[in-house]
Amino acid sequence: MISTKFAIPDIIFGSGSITHLAECAKRVGAQKIFFVSDSGVEESGWVDLVKGILRANNLECVYFNDVNSNPRDRQVHSGAKQYLEARCDVIIALGGGSAMDTAKGIGIIAGNGGQIRDYEGANRIMRPLPPMILIPSTAGSSSDISQFCIITDVEREVKMSIISRSLVPNISIIDPQLLITQSRSLILAAGIDALAHAVESYVSKLASPFTEMQALKAIELIINNIKPAAEDRDLKALEQMSIASTAAGMSFSNAGLGSLHALAHSLGGICDVLHGWVHPVLLPEVMRYNLPSCVGKMGEIGRIISGSHICSTKEAAVLGIDCLEKLFVELGINTRLRDLVPEKETLKKICVTATHDACHLTNPRPATWEDLMTICEEAW
Amino acid sequence: MISTKFAIPDIIFGSGSITHLAECAKRVGAQKIFFVSDSGVEESGWVDLVKGILRANNLECVYFNDVNSNPRDRQVHSGAKQYLEARCDVIIALGGGSAMDTAKGIGIIAGNGGQIRDYEGANRIMRPLPPMILIPSTAGSSSDISQFCIITDVEREVKMSIISRSLVPNISIIDPQLLITQSRSLILAAGIDALAHAVESYVSKLASPFTEMQALKAIELIINNIKPAAEDRDLKALEQMSIASTAAGMSFSNAGLGSLHALAHSLGGICDVLHGWVHPVLLPEVMRYNLPSCVGKMGEIGRIISGSHICSTKEAAVLGIDCLEKLFVELGINTRLRDLVPEKETLKKICVTATHDACHLTNPRPATWEDLMTICEEAW
Repeated sequence: MISTKFAIPDIIFGSGSITHLAECAKRVGAQKIFFVSDSGVEESGWVDLVKGILRANNLECVYFNDVNSNPRDRQVHSGAKQYLEARCDVIIALGGGSAMDTAKGIGIIAGNGGQIRDYEGANRIMRPLPPMILIPSTAGSSSDISQFCIITDVEREVKMSIISRSLVPNISIIDPQLLITQSRSLILAAGIDALAHAVESYVSKLASPFTEMQALKAIELIINNIKPAAEDRDLKALEQMSIASTAAGMSFSNAGLGSLHALAHSLGGICDVLHGWVHPVLLPEVMRYNLPSCVGKMGEIGRIISGSHICSTKEAAVLGIDCLEKLFVELGINTRLRDLVPEKETLKKICVTATHDACHLTNPRPATWEDLMTICEEAW
Repeated sequence: MISTKFAIPDIIFGSGSITHLAECAKRVGAQKIFFVSDSGVEESGWVDLVKGILRANNLECVYFNDVNSNPRDRQVHSGAKQYLEARCDVIIALGGGSAMDTAKGIGIIAGNGGQIRDYEGANRIMRPLPPMILIPSTAGSSSDISQFCIITDVEREVKMSIISRSLVPNISIIDPQLLITQSRSLILAAGIDALAHAVESYVSKLASPFTEMQALKAIELIINNIKPAAEDRDLKALEQMSIASTAAGMSFSNAGLGSLHALAHSLGGICDVLHGWVHPVLLPEVMRYNLPSCVGKMGEIGRIISGSHICSTKEAAVLGIDCLEKLFVELGINTRLRDLVPEKETLKKICVTATHDACHLTNPRPATWEDLMTICEEAW
C-alpha cells in the first residue's frame, strides 16, 4: 500500500452533546466568537440555544446568518470582513453543509487573505485558520468532519471544491437531537448525500482500509435507518443516521469522492439545485458507469444494499444498484435529471465543468466529458 | 446514547511513510528535536535512518535512548531535564510502547513540571505538551494513537496508567516496513497486545459505535494475519497487523480497556514482566469472567475468532475463548501464570493493585480483588 493519510477532528457525539459547547470553546481559547448559522436553523430554536449557552458562560459572540444553500463567494468575503473587524478569535457554525462551509470559507479568508477562488482545488491553503467548532444540524454533509469546503463562484457559475487538511475543524459536536426539528425532505436529502459520500469514497482511487471500514458501516446504517428516520423522526434511527453520516465523513474526507460529486457540484453551480437532490438522479447511473472498474467493491456494496448473499459478485453489484433505484422511488424522490435542469442544452457545460472538479480525479474509472454526457443522457 | 468522545492523531500510514517525517516535523514547528528511541531499535538501523532524514533537512536533534521495557519514572524525569536544558521544541519517538510512553512522559513533565506520579489516573494533565510525532516500530501498543501513557513508579512498584487527551500525539507515522526487523517473539507479543486492546475495548463500558467498528475489524485482521506475520515476516501480513493495531488503538484510546490490562499493569510493575506476555496467560480467563455481562458482544468476538456461524451466541462466545487458547498453544506461547510470577504469595498484591488501575473502571463486569484472585488462580 502506498502512503495514505487519515485525519479527523476531535468528535463529541451523542444526544445532549451540544451542552459541552462552552467548555469546547474555552479549550480552543475563545474569548470572542464568530457564530455562523442560517434562518432555517433559527426557526428551529437551536440558534437561540447556542447563544444562550455562550452567554451563560460569558463568551462574547458576533452572529452571522448571511448563508445560502450553495453558499456564495460574496457571503464568505463579507463574513471574513466582519470577523476581522470584530476581532473575533474562534468560529462556531451550526447548520447543514451550507452554514458550515460558509464558516470554513470565512476562516480561510480571515487566516489567509485574498479571494476565496484563490484556494480552489487541493492543498492551496498555506496559513492556519482560526480555531473552528462545527455543530451539524443535518446528518449528511459531514462538513464538520471533512477537509472539504464547497463555495459557489457566482461570476463563473462554479461550485468550487476547496480541499485542505486545515479545513478539518478542531472539534465537531454531533448531537442527534438537533435532527428532530428537520423536515422529512431535508432528512432524506441529507441522508442520501451521506450515502453518496460512502459509496463514492468506498470505490475512490484513494480509499484505504481506514476509510473502507467507515464507508461500508455508513452504507449499512443508512439503508437500515433512512426510512424510519425520515418517516417517523424516530430518535434512535436519527442517531444511527448521525453515526452513518459521521462515518461517511471520515471516509470521504480522507479518500475523496468521484464523478457523481463532480457533477453535483457543477450542476449546483449552474442550476442552483439543492445538493442532496442530485444524488437520487445520478448515483445509480454513475455506479453503473464505474462498475467495470471496481466489480468486487460494488458487489460488497450491492450485498449490503440488497441484503442478498446468494448471487455472484457481479450480480450483487447490479442488484444493489437496482435496489437503490427502487428505494428512491419508494421514498417518492425525483429520479429524473430533466426535473433538475431547465434546459437540456446546459448539459454539455455541466459535464465539461465537472471534469475540472477536484472530486473527478479520484473516480475509479476515468471519464471524459462525453462519458459524463452519456451518464446524464441515461438519467435524463 | 450518552455523549461519547472520539479523538485520534493525524495518521500517515503505509510502506515508506517514514520518508514524510521531516515535512511532518516542520509542520508542527520543529527546529530542535528531542528524539527518543532505544538500543533495540538502534540495532535494526531505523534510528540512524531517522537521524539521517532529520540531518538532510537541517533539523537539529538531541538523541535520548535511556528507555526500558516497563519504562521508569526516573528515565522520564531525566529525559525531561535534558529536553528543557537543550531547549528542544518537538518530541519524536521511534519504537514500541516503551519508547513512545517514555517520550510521552517526558512531554508531560516538560510541559507541566512536577513528578510523573502527580499525573496518574485520568484527565490530570492541565497544560499542553510539546508537539509530538510518534513512529511505532511494533504493531501492538498503539501508543502512537492513544491517550494512554504507562510509566512505572519504581518506589511503589506500580505501573501507572496516565490517561489524557493531550497524550494523543499530533502525528502518528505508521510504516509497516519497520516491522520486518522485529523478532518472531516481539511480533507475537505486540500482536497479542493489540488483540487484547481490541477485545477489552469492544466490551468496555465506554464503547461507542465509533470504537466498536474499529475493534471488530482489528480482531478479524489479527486472527487472519498473526501467524504469517510472525512465522514468515510476510510484508502483506505485517501491513495488515499494522492496520489492526492502529484500529485497536483508535478503539481502546477512546473506549478504555478493562481488568486484563489492570492486571497486566500491576503484574508488570511488581514482576517486571514484558507486557505482551501477560495477555496469553490472562485474556481467556478474563473473557470467561466477563462473559455473563456481555454475552452478545462476546458472541460476536467468538464468531470472528472461531469462524463458526452455526452455533448460538453463548456457544460462539465460549468457542471463541477456546479457539484463542488453542491459538496461543499452537504459537508456542506460555499460557500459565506460574511461569510469569516467581512467588504465588505476590498474587494478592497484584490483584489489590490492579483494582486501583484506571483501566479497571471500564471493565464490563465489576470485579473485587478477590474476583481477580479467582481469575489468577484459574490461570495459575
